[in-house]
Amino acid sequence: MKAVVKSAPIDGPAGTEVRDCPVPRPGPDEILIRVAAAAICGTDKHIYHWDPSIRDSVKPPRIYGHEFCGFIEEFGERAHREGFAAGDYVSAEMHVVCGECVQCRSGNGHICARTKIYGLHEDGAYAEFVKVPASNVIKLGPYVPLRVGALLDALGNAVHATQIADLAGKSVAITGFGPIGAMAAAIAEHSGASTVIVTDISDNALETARRWAASRNFANLHAFNVKTSDAAEVKKAINAITGGVGVDMVLEMSGSSAAINFGLDIVRMGGLLSLLGLPAGHSVTINDYTRNVIFKGVTLQGIIGRRMYSTWQRMLSLLRSGLDVEWVVQATFDSLQEFHEGMARFDRHEALKVVFFPEGEKAAQARLR
Amino acid sequence: MKAVVKSAPIDGPAGTEVRDCPVPRPGPDEILIRVAAAAICGTDKHIYHWDPSIRDSVKPPRIYGHEFCGFIEEFGERAHREGFAAGDYVSAEMHVVCGECVQCRSGNGHICARTKIYGLHEDGAYAEFVKVPASNVIKLGPYVPLRVGALLDALGNAVHATQIADLAGKSVAITGFGPIGAMAAAIAEHSGASTVIVTDISDNALETARRWAASRNFANLHAFNVKTSDAAEVKKAINAITGGVGVDMVLEMSGSSAAINFGLDIVRMGGLLSLLGLPAGHSVTINDYTRNVIFKGVTLQGIIGRRMYSTWQRMLSLLRSGLDVEWVVQATFDSLQEFHEGMARFDRHEALKVVFFPEGEKAAQARLR
Amino acid sequence: MKAVVKSAPIDGPAGTEVRDCPVPRPGPDEILIRVAAAAICGTDKHIYHWDPSIRDSVKPPRIYGHEFCGFIEEFGERAHREGFAAGDYVSAEMHVVCGECVQCRSGNGHICARTKIYGLHEDGAYAEFVKVPASNVIKLGPYVPLRVGALLDALGNAVHATQIADLAGKSVAITGFGPIGAMAAAIAEHSGASTVIVTDISDNALETARRWAASRNFANLHAFNVKTSDAAEVKKAINAITGGVGVDMVLEMSGSSAAINFGLDIVRMGGLLSLLGLPAGHSVTINDYTRNVIFKGVTLQGIIGRRMYSTWQRMLSLLRSGLDVEWVVQATFDSLQEFHEGMARFDRHEALKVVFFPEGEKAAQARLR
Amino acid sequence: MKAVVKSAPIDGPAGTEVRDCPVPRPGPDEILIRVAAAAICGTDKHIYHWDPSIRDSVKPPRIYGHEFCGFIEEFGERAHREGFAAGDYVSAEMHVVCGECVQCRSGNGHICARTKIYGLHEDGAYAEFVKVPASNVIKLGPYVPLRVGALLDALGNAVHATQIADLAGKSVAITGFGPIGAMAAAIAEHSGASTVIVTDISDNALETARRWAASRNFANLHAFNVKTSDAAEVKKAINAITGGVGVDMVLEMSGSSAAINFGLDIVRMGGLLSLLGLPAGHSVTINDYTRNVIFKGVTLQGIIGRRMYSTWQRMLSLLRSGLDVEWVVQATFDSLQEFHEGMARFDRHEALKVVFFPEGEKAAQARLR
Repeated sequence: MKAVVKSAPIDGPAGTEVRDCPVPRPGPDEILIRVAAAAICGTDKHIYHWDPSIRDSVKPPRIYGHEFCGFIEEFGERAHREGFAAGDYVSAEMHVVCGECVQCRSGNGHICARTKIYGLHEDGAYAEFVKVPASNVIKLGPYVPLRVGALLDALGNAVHATQIADLAGKSVAITGFGPIGAMAAAIAEHSGASTVIVTDISDNALETARRWAASRNFANLHAFNVKTSDAAEVKKAINAITGGVGVDMVLEMSGSSAAINFGLDIVRMGGLLSLLGLPAGHSVTINDYTRNVIFKGVTLQGIIGRRMYSTWQRMLSLLRSGLDVEWVVQATFDSLQEFHEGMARFDRHEALKVVFFPEGEKAAQARLR
Repeated sequence: MKAVVKSAPIDGPAGTEVRDCPVPRPGPDEILIRVAAAAICGTDKHIYHWDPSIRDSVKPPRIYGHEFCGFIEEFGERAHREGFAAGDYVSAEMHVVCGECVQCRSGNGHICARTKIYGLHEDGAYAEFVKVPASNVIKLGPYVPLRVGALLDALGNAVHATQIADLAGKSVAITGFGPIGAMAAAIAEHSGASTVIVTDISDNALETARRWAASRNFANLHAFNVKTSDAAEVKKAINAITGGVGVDMVLEMSGSSAAINFGLDIVRMGGLLSLLGLPAGHSVTINDYTRNVIFKGVTLQGIIGRRMYSTWQRMLSLLRSGLDVEWVVQATFDSLQEFHEGMARFDRHEALKVVFFPEGEKAAQARLR
Repeated sequence: MKAVVKSAPIDGPAGTEVRDCPVPRPGPDEILIRVAAAAICGTDKHIYHWDPSIRDSVKPPRIYGHEFCGFIEEFGERAHREGFAAGDYVSAEMHVVCGECVQCRSGNGHICARTKIYGLHEDGAYAEFVKVPASNVIKLGPYVPLRVGALLDALGNAVHATQIADLAGKSVAITGFGPIGAMAAAIAEHSGASTVIVTDISDNALETARRWAASRNFANLHAFNVKTSDAAEVKKAINAITGGVGVDMVLEMSGSSAAINFGLDIVRMGGLLSLLGLPAGHSVTINDYTRNVIFKGVTLQGIIGRRMYSTWQRMLSLLRSGLDVEWVVQATFDSLQEFHEGMARFDRHEALKVVFFPEGEKAAQARLR
Repeated sequence: MKAVVKSAPIDGPAGTEVRDCPVPRPGPDEILIRVAAAAICGTDKHIYHWDPSIRDSVKPPRIYGHEFCGFIEEFGERAHREGFAAGDYVSAEMHVVCGECVQCRSGNGHICARTKIYGLHEDGAYAEFVKVPASNVIKLGPYVPLRVGALLDALGNAVHATQIADLAGKSVAITGFGPIGAMAAAIAEHSGASTVIVTDISDNALETARRWAASRNFANLHAFNVKTSDAAEVKKAINAITGGVGVDMVLEMSGSSAAINFGLDIVRMGGLLSLLGLPAGHSVTINDYTRNVIFKGVTLQGIIGRRMYSTWQRMLSLLRSGLDVEWVVQATFDSLQEFHEGMARFDRHEALKVVFFPEGEKAAQARLR
């Protein structure tokens, strides 16, 4: 089968090969899945560029990719699960957890300290076939288009980041309108948020946000470029939008110190910050901890992965109830062969999400029953 | 001024008079409000019919009515509040609480044991003017149409009943599609609920539900007549709709024992019941307490009034974000003189909500700035 | 091996035999445990008396008993778990859940609709050996005396019922001072509850409660006989104890309709009822639903089993921090042969808990390392 | 009357005078209280030393002091409250809030952005008499010794910081064993915490912690000097104490960047940090935000003041149930005249809490009825 392999510890095209690999054999507790569609995640970009942040996790040669959907091809001998059959349309949680630790044994597997990620520590989904532990396979329904099925891992991040609060009637700021920020905006609007404020440093991203809002007749989107505008002016504008109170919730999607501090500045007294973005370096300086953390009495919540599996349940339920995120897929390719081109477009921010169909989109569609 | 007075402890027209009364003088901590619009609540119906349930609370002669909006006419000497001025468009929380008890002093005034209700224990809003404690006055904005301003008390009940859970992606059953059930349905749809199941014993009510859903292109409404249908069949249908799991949340709006038991039957394991409806008698028998309460591990939450004032904050925020409930007003009258006719239509279930404009709707509109 | 077998669908000694049975062979995912100590649960009493409530669950012949501790004897071929070795001191969660349903997949396995209970649906722990699924085995430490290890299932019920609220500084009423009520009292005192009110219909039980409190120098226990005292007087007394407010939380351990209504009467506005007791019949009538459920704005929470496995984690943590419940074991037997005598004493309420040591307490102690 | 006055914007004795001042006259909504006992808070030290952090809040001349108890002397004309009478033993919440903002109107007055603090923005309690808004007065009972009544403001901080989690069976680390840390330790032990880990940079403070634990036979206290010990060694020790998992909750009482980072290092995956300490500068750098905030999925909660008034209710309830914090008062003075000496001892960390009795402790005791 064709697969995208991190072949050498080098940045760029030289370190990633699209080449023939043997089809994996599922272990006794694993399911083999024929990949219908796979998407690029920010982490894949780090792997592609051999970013220091992922060097400890990935040992070349390694097939990467961890956002995908597909069809069950084969069950390991003990991998049969009630209601699952060959040909079923599925995705998978690619965080594989120990099942034994305090976290795993109390419904908090998403923060298992021994998590292994398929697509990093084990072979992943940029391939015609991928094998995953049976317990991690998630059955999808016809309300999940293939292009959305391809990015459920990322959508799950957005759902996890938002599900810590009831958004109905709330004002929400999203710092960073990348793919997860964009999907968070869609979730907020779908969940009855009163106001969605988007900040980014790219006019292009902000324009995408505005076009999306217009397409939904959603009048309560406000988008600000926090690089080209004066911060104090933006704060004043947000203050006015929120009746002088500040936003109820900040969804921090950028990992930028400036954005984290900005979020703390604009959140209301007693507000909530859902922190998902990862900083380029390790450290973050909170400029006015006394005023913005203590005196404001805020809550900050670190968000990692997806709750197993309540985030998946909620995500599918939101999609079933009409949540639309297909628009974030802004580039598709009908073969893995074009991986370098797809990554280049992702790199240049030309597409929020890039999706590959290893055997072509039409062929994959035809397998959907 | 003209006012609707419960003049004698008698059922029907003989016990209620529309007559001239002196304009009330606001006490030092009260605000006098010119009534723009006032709505009929189920409790008003009980007063009209001199129902045993309200006899202890109402001592004739008493001006009744506790759902209204209007314009500030006059402040008591100590009643000035920052940001409030004569002419402001306002409504009011008509539950007046002691401010001193454990509940009041911990942000739970809505369950103050010494609550006095204006419109029952004190004179109310079926009049040209009404006085209320300054602290209970709520400022409204142009996003609240007068007809909606007239029913905020009832909408607040619906908001309170729903705000105990995040509805996004949830399946919700509403037992009883009266005015509060209808508004709860609107809130659920607005908040991203995946499915809204309505049960009632009136085909007329169910038809209204279906028409509302159609008008919103909301495909996930299911309406069942639990009187004319076989209960087992309805359960089977709901089971199918919810993928065999049961509904996540029940909003019990009827007070009927049958509905409460039906709600316990259809809620999922670990589900939530928000209980607002009041039974005609005092007692309710839970038929299968062992299986439906204990073994299911459900949560039941009694709902009374509106949280002071977080429910009001949320309600206004929902309205600002586009929640539409104006459609529940199905009859309006341009004078209090027609009170008996309005009550008759409410009695005959010809209108979910009946609204009176003491000086006419046009005149009231003209005062809106 | 010797085992206690429900041999025939008959009440009493004629339906239960202590007899020789083959030692069970663990399946591939099971662990075989040498039973050190096993306790009688109320459910075992129902099995013994062939109560209608359990007839659907138990098919004679069946070894019963589901509260126990012991030592790992043998692992099934795939049953090895990190950190577990032969000889380890363990107990087990005897609710075996499907692992596949919405509840199981979201950390709520305790309300899996397909729960099988070992000791009812499968053979249990009144035996020298018992096999259980590896995932359900819980490792114990030296801070768990054997007599307490024998009753962790029941202690887990008490922990589950109390863990839904932070008890520090709270007033708590426990309706029903059987074994679980007694352990709930111990948890409440250990967790800093300000007041523990116990109601029961047996002076003997209340005397036990008072003796326990005296032994701990716990001055804030109040015990009332709600059968021999005038209910209004008891309410008045509780009212005085709680400063006229009512109790913060009711732990309902009796299943009696009278107790449930009494709990609703004495709980404060906005209070919490944790409902664990099972009624003899199926139905429960709430006498004053309007006033005590709706107007009070209370929360009722059905409690079943133990959360898997956060209740176990918390239970062990409480024991490690000094929670003492060993005193509820009021009768022990050094052989299963005396099962009928033990059950008779349990039946006569002569002991809150009865514990059997199949090979004798001393021999079991000697195996503790 | 005698009062301690910040007389000039200068550090030390030259800027604070004990001098005669007129007895304040209560406004119409205020109550005048005869001060029985008043304690030094860290903020008072900042005022004494004319720390930059408080210069904006305090305009000399100003009577300071905001932790106290006393007896009602006189009511303003509208200040009568049900159940309050002259001579009553009381304390007061000295944060005076606007009552009008979103926070105040939703039970979150403790984060009102317009808070005024009596003892900083208005005259305070280092005097024979102090006046406060009637609504802020809290009635005390005989279960509150005068020395504890004097420090309820600080105890309230500790209660607020701990009340965000149920501590029963939890492992808790307290970074900073000053007066609030010490009281937090007492609350944790009282509430059934399984383990209390204390870190500080003073051996003296740690010795106090150990002596306290010994006096209570509390075996699960562990105290570490994080200045003189190797950080890695301390982490290893804490890791061992918590079974390799990390602590459930960190109570950050120091405001030190090092302590905040240490807390993030030792908290378990998904753990909780309650942040109360104020940094000397404004900023705090989180060294490993990616690993310790995001990947750990932790929750950080800023804590300010006391919830109005649920923290007070809980605090009194804890004291009623036996919480003992009197031991933190390690120096007392029978006159305000000795204020400079008391502050000097507080400055030298010779006493966790210093309490002044303006008319002497005996005379104050005699007024307790």
